[in-house]
Amino acid sequence: MAQDFIQMVLFQLFMIIVLVEVSKMICNRVKVPTVIGEIMVGIVIANTFLYNFINLGSDTEVFEVLKELGVIFLLFTVGLETPFSTIRKVGKTAIMVAVFGVILPFFVGYGLMVGLGYGIVEALFVGAAMVATSVGITARVIKDMNLMHAIESRVIIGAAVIDDILGMIILAVVIGIAGGGALDIVQVGVVSFEAVLFVLAVIFIGSLLLPKVMKKRSEKKATQVCTAERRTRGISPLPLALIICFALSSVSSFLGLAAIIGAFLAGMAFAEFKDTWPCEEKIQPITEFLTPFFFVFVGISVSLAAFSDVLILAIIITLLAIVTKFVGCGIGAKKLGGKSAAIIGVGMIPRGEVGLIVAAIGLSLLDEYNIPILSAGIYNVIVFMSLATTLIAPPLLTYTFRRKLGKKCELAPLKE
Amino acid sequence: MAQDFIQMVLFQLFMIIVLVEVSKMICNRVKVPTVIGEIMVGIVIANTFLYNFINLGSDTEVFEVLKELGVIFLLFTVGLETPFSTIRKVGKTAIMVAVFGVILPFFVGYGLMVGLGYGIVEALFVGAAMVATSVGITARVIKDMNLMHAIESRVIIGAAVIDDILGMIILAVVIGIAGGGALDIVQVGVVSFEAVLFVLAVIFIGSLLLPKVMKKRSEKKATQVCTAERRTRGISPLPLALIICFALSSVSSFLGLAAIIGAFLAGMAFAEFKDTWPCEEKIQPITEFLTPFFFVFVGISVSLAAFSDVLILAIIITLLAIVTKFVGCGIGAKKLGGKSAAIIGVGMIPRGEVGLIVAAIGLSLLDEYNIPILSAGIYNVIVFMSLATTLIAPPLLTYTFRRKLGKKCELAPLKE
Repeated sequence: MAQDFIQMVLFQLFMIIVLVEVSKMICNRVKVPTVIGEIMVGIVIANTFLYNFINLGSDTEVFEVLKELGVIFLLFTVGLETPFSTIRKVGKTAIMVAVFGVILPFFVGYGLMVGLGYGIVEALFVGAAMVATSVGITARVIKDMNLMHAIESRVIIGAAVIDDILGMIILAVVIGIAGGGALDIVQVGVVSFEAVLFVLAVIFIGSLLLPKVMKKRSEKKATQVCTAERRTRGISPLPLALIICFALSSVSSFLGLAAIIGAFLAGMAFAEFKDTWPCEEKIQPITEFLTPFFFVFVGISVSLAAFSDVLILAIIITLLAIVTKFVGCGIGAKKLGGKSAAIIGVGMIPRGEVGLIVAAIGLSLLDEYNIPILSAGIYNVIVFMSLATTLIAPPLLTYTFRRKLGKKCELAPLKE
Repeated sequence: MAQDFIQMVLFQLFMIIVLVEVSKMICNRVKVPTVIGEIMVGIVIANTFLYNFINLGSDTEVFEVLKELGVIFLLFTVGLETPFSTIRKVGKTAIMVAVFGVILPFFVGYGLMVGLGYGIVEALFVGAAMVATSVGITARVIKDMNLMHAIESRVIIGAAVIDDILGMIILAVVIGIAGGGALDIVQVGVVSFEAVLFVLAVIFIGSLLLPKVMKKRSEKKATQVCTAERRTRGISPLPLALIICFALSSVSSFLGLAAIIGAFLAGMAFAEFKDTWPCEEKIQPITEFLTPFFFVFVGISVSLAAFSDVLILAIIITLLAIVTKFVGCGIGAKKLGGKSAAIIGVGMIPRGEVGLIVAAIGLSLLDEYNIPILSAGIYNVIVFMSLATTLIAPPLLTYTFRRKLGKKCELAPLKE
């Protein structure tokens, strides 16, 4: 009955938040980023009696949505702190970081798999999974450390957006090859073109054109009589922010990009209108409420038992994923100096949910075409790599930031 | 695929928020409470091409949860504004209002149905559906008008809580009779006792015992050296509020009470700790984000086409539901004076989701015992009554409040 269903969900929400709070206290005590604690909560839930106790298998849809909303609000919040003008300054560096950070992991991953005797399709999927950076993890660490305005943070975020577009193009090509049909170069071209166009259009309209128009209008209005009542008639900041955020994330998802790219662009556009529509204080608590679900459910997708068979290959791939991304992105950012390049290289390491999405697409193609594209073993390797890079990045990022900024940069104990 | 599912949900969220904002602008222009607009949005969606366009039939679980979270956060916020000390002052009046407001509608509804020749079980269900007040609607209007501190508001909220307990007892008795078996008085007694005990225990511990203990502890601490660091080590207000809120609402739901009763009690307990854990500013935006989903989905459950057959009976029952509640509660509150009694009588009118829940239970019993307890016609009558009382209450409440308070009380144009 409906009543029982709601009762169960409320109990699940209660349990998850309690576990997250306990993990936060432990993380603060041992001085580890709290995001690690949230992922660990998920891993613990998934691999103990807690999974059945909380009865999480029964309403995946609800938590899938809460999880996605969590990462969407997180990226929107990060976008709010990243006006386009500041990204533009780091544009060239970000492009270099993204391109080198894509090429190196892809070819190394592909080469290794082919060298080990795996099929070309499996090798391509592993390469594709090693490409795309999950900006969610890095964004969270940057946000927890209050370093959203650091130049390295901006390069990372900018590069991660470009990275996602490149990753999507590669994934489209790989799917085309894996599907067995002749690779439709025209279609891949069209999809890529749409994605680039979308990002550029949003940036142009939201961050360049509209702010100028608004500025002119407000200058004009300042000379006229303007009643306070007229202002309150308009839309309030929170609903407007929600509308723009959901609109751009669904368009982004519709075009084959990650929904979070749209959310980030929406936040970036909103950053230009902080005076007219101050929505930050209203968005922040919603982010705080929903974001933990994302990280907990990243952890929940881990089944420890499944890793034993492929552990060695998984460790090799993970090490390569870390080294190639670090070196590739570091090369791209070398003109910022060694310490900054190290921060950026480390910040681009986590593959998180993007790697998991590539693995999931590989598995679903297996069903669709009824061909064993990704053996279960390779699937587990990709999952392991995604999670290991996700877990290793936050402490490294904290360390490299501290090394550069010294005592100025302190991990905030509990975001309030 | 998972990606498509998320894409659809994001689009649905976008569409619903856009429609709600449009309805708000219209409501503000024609000076009608915005909650009416939200319900109308739901009715419009349910009865036009929009339902299929937004594709709402396909993920009911997600929106069922968003809807329930919306009303839970609303009642928690109302509880935050209602410290127990202020309810205690109006306790006797609230009890009188609740008792008279339950007895009159129940017997009049039951009597009419029996007089019209319907079966005893159907008559009992109609009576039961006419009993319980949906505090959500009234709470929203009171909140939008910034009248949470008015004595009438407190009597209404207090009475609605008692009302829900009485309603639950009646529903348990009716289900016992309808189930065909001998009515298990003992079991009904146990369930009722548990419910009363829960409410009293939460009030005693949360609103009386803990505040005293905390006060003593802080007095003790004030004499010791207390570092600022120690304070930040503890739990932050928002997670603590979420934990208590979800804990009490699931216990409340587990005991057979509405989950929102638990949420309200949690908010009421939190009201005593505003200095230690100020969570209001953090909870408010979450409420603002989620609450519209509740009212939109109340509207969506309305199928206009289904009403034509039973329209006359539905109108009669609705009028009786309004008059009996108004008179019953008015009698209970008569010592506060005519104008205040009128406000309270009007504030108790909406049946909202509580009536809908009774109707839904009636229909589900029909399935379970394979007996036609509630004919589809009577089901529609109850649904009509619930919605009509819900739609009529906000304007009446605004009117009666204004009549008493004069110009001092203005409907806030857009809650910010």
